[in-house]
Amino acid sequence: MSNELEIYDTTLRDGSQGEGVNLSLADKLHLAEVLDWLGVAWIEGGWPLSNEKDRAFFRDVRKLDLKTARISAFGSTRHAKNAPADDPNLQALVAAQADACCIFGKTWDLHVREALRVSLDDNLAMIATSVEYLRSATGRPVFYDAEHFFDGYKANPEYALRTLEAAFNAGAERLVLCDTNGGSLPAQVIEAVRTVRERLAGARVGIHVHNDGGLAVANTLAAVDAGAVQVQGTINGVGERCGNVDLCAVIANAELKLSRRCLPAGHLTRLTEASRAVWERINLVGPSNQPYVGRAAFAHKGGIHVSAVQRNSLTYEHVAPETVGNERRILISELAGRSNVQAKLAARFPQLTDPALQKAVLDEIVEKENRGWSFEAAEGSFELLVRRHLGTWKPAFKLHHYRIHGLGSEALQPQLVEGTVKIEVGSEVRLRVAEGHGPVDALSHALQEALRPTYPQLAQLQLTDYKVRVVDSKDGTAAQVRVLIEYQFNDRSFGTIGVSENIIEASWNALVEGIECALQD
Amino acid sequence: MSNELEIYDTTLRDGSQGEGVNLSLADKLHLAEVLDWLGVAWIEGGWPLSNEKDRAFFRDVRKLDLKTARISAFGSTRHAKNAPADDPNLQALVAAQADACCIFGKTWDLHVREALRVSLDDNLAMIATSVEYLRSATGRPVFYDAEHFFDGYKANPEYALRTLEAAFNAGAERLVLCDTNGGSLPAQVIEAVRTVRERLAGARVGIHVHNDGGLAVANTLAAVDAGAVQVQGTINGVGERCGNVDLCAVIANAELKLSRRCLPAGHLTRLTEASRAVWERINLVGPSNQPYVGRAAFAHKGGIHVSAVQRNSLTYEHVAPETVGNERRILISELAGRSNVQAKLAARFPQLTDPALQKAVLDEIVEKENRGWSFEAAEGSFELLVRRHLGTWKPAFKLHHYRIHGLGSEALQPQLVEGTVKIEVGSEVRLRVAEGHGPVDALSHALQEALRPTYPQLAQLQLTDYKVRVVDSKDGTAAQVRVLIEYQFNDRSFGTIGVSENIIEASWNALVEGIECALQD
Repeated sequence: MSNELEIYDTTLRDGSQGEGVNLSLADKLHLAEVLDWLGVAWIEGGWPLSNEKDRAFFRDVRKLDLKTARISAFGSTRHAKNAPADDPNLQALVAAQADACCIFGKTWDLHVREALRVSLDDNLAMIATSVEYLRSATGRPVFYDAEHFFDGYKANPEYALRTLEAAFNAGAERLVLCDTNGGSLPAQVIEAVRTVRERLAGARVGIHVHNDGGLAVANTLAAVDAGAVQVQGTINGVGERCGNVDLCAVIANAELKLSRRCLPAGHLTRLTEASRAVWERINLVGPSNQPYVGRAAFAHKGGIHVSAVQRNSLTYEHVAPETVGNERRILISELAGRSNVQAKLAARFPQLTDPALQKAVLDEIVEKENRGWSFEAAEGSFELLVRRHLGTWKPAFKLHHYRIHGLGSEALQPQLVEGTVKIEVGSEVRLRVAEGHGPVDALSHALQEALRPTYPQLAQLQLTDYKVRVVDSKDGTAAQVRVLIEYQFNDRSFGTIGVSENIIEASWNALVEGIECALQD
Repeated sequence: MSNELEIYDTTLRDGSQGEGVNLSLADKLHLAEVLDWLGVAWIEGGWPLSNEKDRAFFRDVRKLDLKTARISAFGSTRHAKNAPADDPNLQALVAAQADACCIFGKTWDLHVREALRVSLDDNLAMIATSVEYLRSATGRPVFYDAEHFFDGYKANPEYALRTLEAAFNAGAERLVLCDTNGGSLPAQVIEAVRTVRERLAGARVGIHVHNDGGLAVANTLAAVDAGAVQVQGTINGVGERCGNVDLCAVIANAELKLSRRCLPAGHLTRLTEASRAVWERINLVGPSNQPYVGRAAFAHKGGIHVSAVQRNSLTYEHVAPETVGNERRILISELAGRSNVQAKLAARFPQLTDPALQKAVLDEIVEKENRGWSFEAAEGSFELLVRRHLGTWKPAFKLHHYRIHGLGSEALQPQLVEGTVKIEVGSEVRLRVAEGHGPVDALSHALQEALRPTYPQLAQLQLTDYKVRVVDSKDGTAAQVRVLIEYQFNDRSFGTIGVSENIIEASWNALVEGIECALQD
């Protein structure tokens, strides 16, 4: 048995079925780079038949300089009435020009009869001819996803195995057993994988499971133990219902507990950063207790645990946090991880060599992150912070004050909200007023009003996204709010951040940093 | 093998080690009632030696009228130097007068030598005499938690088994094998549980695992399969680091997949409500993809899935959502579950018998919950809503408007924020002003100012908690904010809710509902 385990990521396809996950083309391309940086073997980019965005992905992903990952296009077996060469789905897969195709077909006799409404033999022919056609038309590997495999195998094992046999004999390079409904138990998975491998000598089996029973990681590892060579899943387990299996937990367990190589040597330490980059990009808050990569995964609170773990980390940690790029946190003192920030800083600002200056920057970042800032998605604010320490920050203006006038009950507000700003630009003091649909809108207009005469280029600055999160909901009346704004400025894009107990102040800070950022060069 | 599986809940003890979990005495008592309503066999209330709050819990919990749950007190084996009758920890356990005690001891030879600094034999004596003493002093069952069992068993299996033997021979009624570091694999758990049962004939084994490898549910079910009769865990898997095992997933899997009875007949349908009550009380947002009980656990988004599941739910659901009290959601149309609300309404407002009126109430609730309201923790607002339909709502005042004056940049704000309210009480129009530390504070004071002459009883109304959450962070500039306020009024406590894109408006609505609620009947 090879020591390697093939990681097939489907965050961009199956993961995008998760509630609250809506990926733009730019998001998908960005995430493909994150996945490649992590080092997965395969990235499933989308279903080219289903929409224009996915077709554009397969076109644009070729321009990226990917190091380890190859791209797979997803689709289904041909329609019963079509010849392969006339089937729009198969044609879209060929047109995608991906490094491989992955097509799903029906395993469960009930579905064949009731959903497809074809005979059991016709379904076998659809599987076989689709695999054959794609192989010859693309000259690339074809993976076969056996949808509902475990349910179908339970209902009619012989037929379920025959569907796999059809794909295998037609040349499918992977037979991927799917627990589509996510309700299987590890013992069932082990038995089925063994049977498939006995029945189809030489078949290379994959596993694709969902987490509806809270057993996705266990089911995946069980399949690997029984001989599966490919694991399909998503980063952070995003996906429909209870999600797909979380590749972060699978990769870490497989590498650290089962000695199976999933990523290029040394890449396991990138796991936590990759996980957080995905959470940020899909704009969901990851659970702090996520295994291996969560912010609390190595956080110690109990008095006994804290003192013991400081003496000998093995006492209350199953693995060392550094192995997956995470860090230990002691909740009493709530210290953020300096070493991570330090590494990041060195990579992005090589000119920052003075140790005292480095320390000052680091101190400010750590202190701010402890109070709720997150520079992960706020490159603009991060750059301003460093520039202030380097002395290369050129302030665009000086604030005297801003005010909101007429903020009141809903009936009054649409007509009455005015924002005023009093600022100093050069030697001139300007007081300007503007109306807006709400306080943030009003302040934004007033500020533009005051700055445009001096900085006409601000006309190019566009706000493309505005996000608000409560940082720490357990703080009662003193809840901190984190505002993230994304900007497009000519061909640059960047994010800025503001944190305050007051949502207006947090928004103001993020607005101002956006303007400052655009005016640095 | 009995069909029953004993559920031992440690949410109040081990769960409270989770990040962000801080339980007051009132919280613990409330949660004990929730757990009893769900129907767990045992509730571990706390560690009486460790703090006054836990001692008070054991005193006050006796006044509750619990139906199914018995109470257990947690502690450790005696100190090496103490006789059992002089050991403060054992004395605190006796004084707790719980229905059982659960004490933990050391399994791992390394810990015995390095942490306890006693001989291996002394540790065995500490275990044996502590169990014996508690049994005779309390006359109640003693459960023994073998800390780090799986790590100890790996390092020195013979010694690990001898520690269990010491507890067993001393009369421990359960030998609970703990995966304290949460890093074990199911195969290791199965092997160890089998060995323990072979070695100690007649021993009744329990399992207590953490989720650091994402395998807690699988490890627990593996132990049950190998003969464990007691499962320890927490509701929602709250707990230190990656949490304890989530009892919700364990209970649902054991009942539905393994035919093991965990709760009184018919109580499995309470699982989702119990889970949400715990999330609300600890003020954490549960992950929407939590298996079985999450809001997205049966949410369908993919086009194929939606149409298929509407024809035949088995196609994309491993179990029927109703079996665990959850509901199917179709994300395209985002319809909330009418049947759940209907059932709740019937239980709380039996006087609401008119079908047309029922429908109107239901429509408003469903419509509001779709827009971000959550009446789960806002009983006060729920009652007001129903009263408005019933015609029994007596409005305390009529709002003309409120305004905020002088909201501005941070430097200005402390001196300058004023709130004004113009309201009609009876036939009198009152305009009042007050200052505050922020806009919400100012409005609250101004409103009190205007109402107190007519309603002096409002002096008794106290705001006890104020929580803010962004409901739907993917909505960009139009992000909805949900404000929940909790009030104490004489001996009643209730929550109110406000939802708006404007945090001030959301807070105002929740403030006003609190006052209205206090002034009914």
